[in-house]
Amino acid sequence: MDLHIPNGFLFSSTTAGIKASGRPDLALALAPKGASAAAVFTSNQVVAAPVIVGRENLRASNGNVHALIVNAGNANCATGASGIKAAKAVCRKVARAIQSKPMQVFPSSTGIIGVPLPVEKIIAAIPNLIATAQAGAGALNSFANTILTTDTRSKLVSAELTHKGIKVRLAGVAKGAGMIHPNMATMLVYIFTDVVATQRELQTALKSVVDQSFNNISIDGDTSTNDTVLLLASGQSKVQIKAIRKEFERTLLDICKSLAQQIVADGEGVKHVVHLKIEQARNTTEARKIAGTIATSPLVKTAWAGADPNWGRILATIGRSDVKVDAARISIYLGDQQIFRQGTASSFDHQRAHRYMSQPDYEIRITLGAGKASLEFLSCDLTAEYVHINADYST
Amino acid sequence: MDLHIPNGFLFSSTTAGIKASGRPDLALALAPKGASAAAVFTSNQVVAAPVIVGRENLRASNGNVHALIVNAGNANCATGASGIKAAKAVCRKVARAIQSKPMQVFPSSTGIIGVPLPVEKIIAAIPNLIATAQAGAGALNSFANTILTTDTRSKLVSAELTHKGIKVRLAGVAKGAGMIHPNMATMLVYIFTDVVATQRELQTALKSVVDQSFNNISIDGDTSTNDTVLLLASGQSKVQIKAIRKEFERTLLDICKSLAQQIVADGEGVKHVVHLKIEQARNTTEARKIAGTIATSPLVKTAWAGADPNWGRILATIGRSDVKVDAARISIYLGDQQIFRQGTASSFDHQRAHRYMSQPDYEIRITLGAGKASLEFLSCDLTAEYVHINADYST
Repeated sequence: MDLHIPNGFLFSSTTAGIKASGRPDLALALAPKGASAAAVFTSNQVVAAPVIVGRENLRASNGNVHALIVNAGNANCATGASGIKAAKAVCRKVARAIQSKPMQVFPSSTGIIGVPLPVEKIIAAIPNLIATAQAGAGALNSFANTILTTDTRSKLVSAELTHKGIKVRLAGVAKGAGMIHPNMATMLVYIFTDVVATQRELQTALKSVVDQSFNNISIDGDTSTNDTVLLLASGQSKVQIKAIRKEFERTLLDICKSLAQQIVADGEGVKHVVHLKIEQARNTTEARKIAGTIATSPLVKTAWAGADPNWGRILATIGRSDVKVDAARISIYLGDQQIFRQGTASSFDHQRAHRYMSQPDYEIRITLGAGKASLEFLSCDLTAEYVHINADYST
Repeated sequence: MDLHIPNGFLFSSTTAGIKASGRPDLALALAPKGASAAAVFTSNQVVAAPVIVGRENLRASNGNVHALIVNAGNANCATGASGIKAAKAVCRKVARAIQSKPMQVFPSSTGIIGVPLPVEKIIAAIPNLIATAQAGAGALNSFANTILTTDTRSKLVSAELTHKGIKVRLAGVAKGAGMIHPNMATMLVYIFTDVVATQRELQTALKSVVDQSFNNISIDGDTSTNDTVLLLASGQSKVQIKAIRKEFERTLLDICKSLAQQIVADGEGVKHVVHLKIEQARNTTEARKIAGTIATSPLVKTAWAGADPNWGRILATIGRSDVKVDAARISIYLGDQQIFRQGTASSFDHQRAHRYMSQPDYEIRITLGAGKASLEFLSCDLTAEYVHINADYST
C-alpha cells in the first residue's frame, strides 16, 4: 500500500518487554514543532489511567501535543493512584528528553487490566525510542504493528488532498475494537494530518466524523475502558482547514470508516461483516438504537454465523429495542431480495439468501416506515471461534 | 416428584401433527367451574396473535377462564390478520365444545415464527382432547411435556399451604426462555391454584412475584414475541386469598423462582447457572439494569464458560451500563473470595476461584457502595454449544 504520510511527524517503535510474547510493544509519534490535537474517549465510566491523564494534558496544553507514546500489553486500568502516577512519569520522561512540557505528551495504553504498568521498562526504553524516530511510511507501519494486541493484522489508511497545487495528507492507524482478549482492552485510533487547524476546528470535525464511523460499529457490544481516537494536525502543509473544510471532513470520514471496517473485519472469530442499513427511521438516534440492538443480539449474530436468513430473530430484536415501532410497516431485505414484507413473511429464495449470506461482507436493509432518517451500521457474526477465544481460562 | 395438584382443573394433551418430530404438541387445561385469571405478557412490541387474542379475552371476560389451550411447534407470530383469525377460531371451537364463551378460552402458541398456524389440525384434535381431560399429576406431567419445544426436560413445581386445616395447592409448569431455536419463540408459564381470588387480587400478586423472578433472569437477552405467564385460580379450596395473602405470595414467589431457575438451567448450551447478587445499589431498577448488562455481555458470559475469574470484564461491563457508578467503591466476590476491592485488583487464589466457577451453579456478589437496594439475578454462560445450536442453517 502506498501511504501518504503527513509532514511534521516522526515515528518510532521498540520492544520494551511489556508483552509476554517479546514482540514490539512501545510506540512513539513526535511532532517536533508541535501539533494541534483533538480527541474522543470511551463512554465507559470505568476509565484507564492514560485516558484520565491524556484528557487532562489536552485540557492543560489547550490541545498542543509534541509527543504521543503508546504501550501495548498493559492497559494501566484499575491500577488506582499508582496507575495515574505511572502514566504521568512516562509523560515527564518523554517531555524532558524532547524539551517540551509533560502536558504536551499524550499517553495511551492497551492490554491487560489490573496489572501495574511496568513503568521502569518503559522509561528505560524512551531515550532510544526518541533517538530512532524518523519520518516516512516504514516508520508509521512499524508504529501500527507495535500497538496491536490480539489483532491479526495492522490497520492503516491514508489519503491526500490538493488545494491550489499544495498537498494535504491524512494517515490513520488503529488497533482492534472490543475488549478483545481476556482482560484485554481497547480500540485505539490515531490520525495524523499536516493541515493547519486549531484545537476547536479539529474537535468539531472529529466529533462529527466519529459519530458517523466508530460510533456505528459493534463487535460484541462491550465498550472498553481505554478507547481513544486522537487527531493530530502539524500544520506543515500551510493549508488552512477553513479553505478545504468540506473536502477535509469528507476525507477524514473516509479514513475513519475504513479503519472502522478494518477493525470489525478483524474482530475475534468474525467470518461475516454485516452492513446494517436502517432506513425510514424517525431520527438517527432511533436508527442507531435499533441497529445497536440487532448488532448485539446473540440470536441474530449466531444466525449470521450460519448464513441463516432468519428474519424472525431480526424482527423480534427490533421489537425489544427501546424504539417505538410498528411491525406492520417494517420490511427486511437481503441484498435485492425482500425477506419480510410489512408485518408478514415474504416468499423468497432461501438457497439464494443463504448463498448471499455466505459472503464475507454483505448488506441487510431494514425499512421502518416511520420517518426519513437512515444510518449504516457495521456489525459481524458471533461464531464458536469467538467463544473459544474468549472462554479460554487465562488468568 | 410428588406433585400437589390444585382441585378444579383437568389436563389433557395429544399429537395434532404440528411438530415435525411427531411428538405431542397440543395441550389443554380445563376449569369446569371457571377460574379467575391474571397474566403478564412479553414487553416485546412485536407480539404473536395468541398474545393479542389472550389479552383481549381476559379483558372481555374480566379474567374468567374456562379453558387454556396451548400448541407447540408454531408460534402464530408475524402471521398478520389470518393469524388472529386462526387463534380466534381455536378459541371458538373449544368454547363450543365445553359450552363456554370464546372469551373464556385462553390461547397460547410457541414454535416457529412466520408460518401460518395449521388451524384445521388443531380444530380436528380438540374434541378428543376435551374428552380425555382428567385431574391428577399424570395429566399435568403430560401437559408439561407437550408444551416443550427445544427444551431438554419438562419444568414443573408445586407447593401446598394449610389454612385452618384446609389445603391450598399451587402447581406451575413452564417451557424454555429465550428465543430458543432458530425461529422459535417463547417462555410460557402456567400456574394453577385452588385458592379463592378475584382477578385483581391475582394480578397484584402475580405482578409483584414476576418482578422478583422471571424479570430477573436472562439467557441471551432476547425477549420473545410470545412470552406469557398465566395464573389461574379455581377457588375450589374455598380458602380466601386475603386470609393467607403473605404466605400465598411467598409460595407463589417460590414457585416462580423455581421455574425461572429450571428455565435458565435448561438454556441452550448452558453449563453454568450464575446467581448474580447485586448489593448496595441506589434502587432495584439500577440493580436490575447492572445485572442485566452483565448477564448479556458476551465477554463476561464467555469468561464464565471458561470458569475464568475475570473481574476486568465484569467491571468494564458495569462501567458501560447506564447506571452511574463509582469504580472506587465497587467490590466483587466469588463465593467467599474477594477478587476486586474498591477500584483495584485484590490478590486471590486463582486456582480456587477457577474451581469454584467450575461448579454447575454458583454465586457472584457485587457490592456497589451506592445505596441499600439489592437484587438476585439468574444468568448463565455463553458456550460454543449455544453458537452451534443457533448457527445451524435451518430455514
